[in-house]
Amino acid sequence: MAHPPSAAAAASFDALMAELAPIGRLAATGGYARFAWTAVDAELRDWFVAAAGARGLPVAPDRAGNLWAWAGDPDAAGPGLVLGSHLDSVPDGGAFDGPLGVVSAFAALDDLRARDVALRRPVAVVCFSDEEGARFGVACTGSRLLTGALSPERALAQRDADGTSRADALRSAGVRPADVAADPAALARVGTFVELHVEQGRALAADGRPVAVGESIWPHGRWRLDLPGEANHAGTTALADRRDAVVAAAAVVLQARAAAQRHAALATCGRLVVRPNGVNAVPSSVSVWLDARAVEESRVRAVVDELAGEVEALGGTLTEESWTPRTVFDGALAGRLAALLGDAPLLATGAGHDAGILAAAGVPAGMIFVRNPSGVSHSPAEHAERDDCLAGVAALAAVVAEFAG
Amino acid sequence: MAHPPSAAAAASFDALMAELAPIGRLAATGGYARFAWTAVDAELRDWFVAAAGARGLPVAPDRAGNLWAWAGDPDAAGPGLVLGSHLDSVPDGGAFDGPLGVVSAFAALDDLRARDVALRRPVAVVCFSDEEGARFGVACTGSRLLTGALSPERALAQRDADGTSRADALRSAGVRPADVAADPAALARVGTFVELHVEQGRALAADGRPVAVGESIWPHGRWRLDLPGEANHAGTTALADRRDAVVAAAAVVLQARAAAQRHAALATCGRLVVRPNGVNAVPSSVSVWLDARAVEESRVRAVVDELAGEVEALGGTLTEESWTPRTVFDGALAGRLAALLGDAPLLATGAGHDAGILAAAGVPAGMIFVRNPSGVSHSPAEHAERDDCLAGVAALAAVVAEFAG
Repeated sequence: MAHPPSAAAAASFDALMAELAPIGRLAATGGYARFAWTAVDAELRDWFVAAAGARGLPVAPDRAGNLWAWAGDPDAAGPGLVLGSHLDSVPDGGAFDGPLGVVSAFAALDDLRARDVALRRPVAVVCFSDEEGARFGVACTGSRLLTGALSPERALAQRDADGTSRADALRSAGVRPADVAADPAALARVGTFVELHVEQGRALAADGRPVAVGESIWPHGRWRLDLPGEANHAGTTALADRRDAVVAAAAVVLQARAAAQRHAALATCGRLVVRPNGVNAVPSSVSVWLDARAVEESRVRAVVDELAGEVEALGGTLTEESWTPRTVFDGALAGRLAALLGDAPLLATGAGHDAGILAAAGVPAGMIFVRNPSGVSHSPAEHAERDDCLAGVAALAAVVAEFAG
Repeated sequence: MAHPPSAAAAASFDALMAELAPIGRLAATGGYARFAWTAVDAELRDWFVAAAGARGLPVAPDRAGNLWAWAGDPDAAGPGLVLGSHLDSVPDGGAFDGPLGVVSAFAALDDLRARDVALRRPVAVVCFSDEEGARFGVACTGSRLLTGALSPERALAQRDADGTSRADALRSAGVRPADVAADPAALARVGTFVELHVEQGRALAADGRPVAVGESIWPHGRWRLDLPGEANHAGTTALADRRDAVVAAAAVVLQARAAAQRHAALATCGRLVVRPNGVNAVPSSVSVWLDARAVEESRVRAVVDELAGEVEALGGTLTEESWTPRTVFDGALAGRLAALLGDAPLLATGAGHDAGILAAAGVPAGMIFVRNPSGVSHSPAEHAERDDCLAGVAALAAVVAEFAG
């Protein structure tokens, strides 16, 4: 097992988490609204540049909008070790999902410095952009653009709930949409990527250990279900004359749950947009977003196929917005990480991550999960104990020492 | 039956409708977004002042935010005849619901002037504020405040979807919240109120006649159903561990429809707010607004009671936001209007109107409905033929001639 982090690293960890705490925080819930290419996002990116700068690391964006803080020159010395995660959140998300990986990476570098361990290989901290996809609907947009899994044309055309395109949002943030592209040169600098992340289930809580190593990511995808209705007056239209899109959506939501149960999958209708959304107007259309995942692709497809039939019968359409096949992390790397961390357990997860996108692109990538006592995530109640977080910092420090120390 | 309107009145009607057409229009649908105390609402109110001014009628607001354009002095000459309706809309509403009553009132006065009919009694055109309740959730706010059916405290505290209180919205529109109050003096000036409105069903289309007279308004109300869930990650939380507020809401929506069918009532869940409304977040709470109406109060109560049981079982709450008992319009007035309009048919309607609020407050009030070929309302497709609209103008002109000519 990794030794405990130095007092300097623990102090860094506390200070960095405290700096991030107020950014994008919602007073009403204590949760976070940190969406891509907003003013809050700019504040987070500025924070990243400042934190890297304080450690002597220059920050450069890639063509996909991700930020890289390299210690050493991978173009001269060859591909290096990359740590990091993302800083954006789901609506009303928690403080750990994303930021824990970035903060722990900086704190791990501080730990090595405090212990006078020199780096013999380039090491970077990365901040992936728009991992949650909360604003434009596609998760891991930064890493997907980087690897070419998502085309710039498709990404730029996506619109948020207010109708703003990603292209316009980028322009507002000072990024030229025409510059957005896959970035094989940036990707080639990554010799190994290790993403630390708060666990989003209760496996470690049951196991009694502070950290685990990622083994695989379930296949998962997102679909948009557009259900038509006919606008009309709620007080004067007979039930028999109605085509009420909310009634159709309700049936679809319940069928999604039932189908997921039948096929041992997960299905969530977390986002609904009702039009015109007036109390006394029969809804004219509803869009429902479906998130579906399972251990095996066939189970996910079975759920989606059932819903496609129901949606078609209701006169609607079902559109696949993203699909990520099962990702198996590099077995040799996972074994090496587990051994380094005192035979840490290997975990499969239902959550997608940038590390999974890089792994699918052929980059040796792995993950370290930090225990989450309740398993709650994507919520203001998301939590990890400080001691477990420091165990995560120590784990990353051990990884750096092993791979680049 | 009323004689056809003069060419001058028809020209006025066309011109006034054309002036209103672009205000608050949505390019995407051709519908309207005209919500209380917004910039669009200010434009509509300015239009009303200008249209009245062009006819030599000074406009004064009452303490409830409604605008009154009086010809003659009701404080000196005694209570007068009032025509009019409202200018605000539901989200993506039509061009006729509200504006038709205001425009037809002005055109009717122009008709009398063209025919040199002098007014022997004060006559006003009124523009009620916030009839649809689209922004703050309570319909007929202007008339309810006027009569005292809604307290200023409650109205001022209401918030829109962005969290802006009505008090703040009023301040932005230049109205001092402290001045908002019931206005018995303004109400006392109303001897008779006749509201012309586009029909929101197909009774006249079936009957083959252009206008009808209102007989009664169904009892109706609005309830907010708050359903709790527990925020969590869509990819990592087992179905058995979830408390998904959208699944609860879907069950409630379907039960509302089924209960309405059982009890021969109307029930609509036209507005849903999902929190946090993220694709990969298990919803932490959903608010569903229920609009329920029926010929008899007992049927509405039966629907709401059934839902209250379901909502309680789900750990949620059901709050009555408004309730309007069955309103029967003044029978003598309705009979007189029907006779004046060539034995026009009498209609009961499921839609609430400011005329109903005034009737409930003891003001002699009546309604004239103009044929709607499809019955569609609260929709961009809402429509009335020009000839039928002109028949409505003629009907109002006949009312003015009879009551004040």
